[in-house]
Amino acid sequence: MYPDSVKNLIEAFKYLPGIGEKTAERLAFSILDLDEDQVSLFSESLVEVKNKIHPCPNCNTYTDQDICSICSDITRDKSTLCVVEDTKNVFLFEKLGMFHGVYHVLSGLISPLDGINPEDIGIDKLIDRIKNEHFKEVIFAFKPSIEGETTSLYIKRILDGMGVKVTRLASGVPMGADMEYVDSLTLERALYDRKEIE
Amino acid sequence: MYPDSVKNLIEAFKYLPGIGEKTAERLAFSILDLDEDQVSLFSESLVEVKNKIHPCPNCNTYTDQDICSICSDITRDKSTLCVVEDTKNVFLFEKLGMFHGVYHVLSGLISPLDGINPEDIGIDKLIDRIKNEHFKEVIFAFKPSIEGETTSLYIKRILDGMGVKVTRLASGVPMGADMEYVDSLTLERALYDRKEIE
Repeated sequence: MYPDSVKNLIEAFKYLPGIGEKTAERLAFSILDLDEDQVSLFSESLVEVKNKIHPCPNCNTYTDQDICSICSDITRDKSTLCVVEDTKNVFLFEKLGMFHGVYHVLSGLISPLDGINPEDIGIDKLIDRIKNEHFKEVIFAFKPSIEGETTSLYIKRILDGMGVKVTRLASGVPMGADMEYVDSLTLERALYDRKEIE
Repeated sequence: MYPDSVKNLIEAFKYLPGIGEKTAERLAFSILDLDEDQVSLFSESLVEVKNKIHPCPNCNTYTDQDICSICSDITRDKSTLCVVEDTKNVFLFEKLGMFHGVYHVLSGLISPLDGINPEDIGIDKLIDRIKNEHFKEVIFAFKPSIEGETTSLYIKRILDGMGVKVTRLASGVPMGADMEYVDSLTLERALYDRKEIE
């Protein structure tokens, strides 16, 4: 029914997460409204991202260089390591601009129910790195969830006795949230983690 | 902060309708999870769609051929013309598979408030075609709205006296809808357009 090139483009958009048939059709047709330059940039950057971007051999953050710009930045504080579950979270923290240490990216979180075990998310490499680089503090910046807790606890036990301080992000009521809309698990955690006002 | 190729791809995704910064970032990173073949198909079909697809010179439906497959299909009923506001709607009707006439695609609907006048949506070409091709019936398949009504009435007046039957899609309560959730304009129209049960 659609011309072949349109059909192919609809299929391509459907590869993307959260994009179904109808949205793919809408997006495919929207390409016709773009300038030729925009379409070229789109087309070329797709291939470039796929060809040039790879995980940093040191910390696993996606980079287009041999070593990522954070690992190779001599001004970063090499004594503080922030461990995240996904490369996207590195960029989230970098946007904030208030963390000056370095990162390590795991391939997700431990989730036995989904068949994801410690060896699947690259914990060995993390432990080796912590042993070699003598960090003073390791921060777990995982999403507050059973998987996040499990992963934190698992790594914490391996690090016990290695003389490194292990912390996690504070968890609690989000800034600006209406108390009545905060779920009970979050409220429980906020109460448990309550801080003295100084 | 992001590598250049990722930055470019994020910009490219933001060209698409309804895609903001966060979604663009998510989609750009999702490209890294695709196979190389999938990325190639995506990249190539973008350029192909832009280069090969153009409006059919006869009916304005997007096509990759000289004349679109509907206009060049000799089995179609050339006496019934369905006028739509957007090429996508041709494909909507074709998916239904119950209309066997031919189409004409306008460039939107008349909307004086948005500065869109009859000459902006290609009505001259439609009228010329109706004069030349001697249709028995012209169906307006516009979205039920002030713009749709305005456009229908405007064209209807020009066609008056040309001996062509002019119809519009039925408008009313959608199939399966709960009456209480139907808006009052729709309900009004459904009452006005009520049909005798035979």
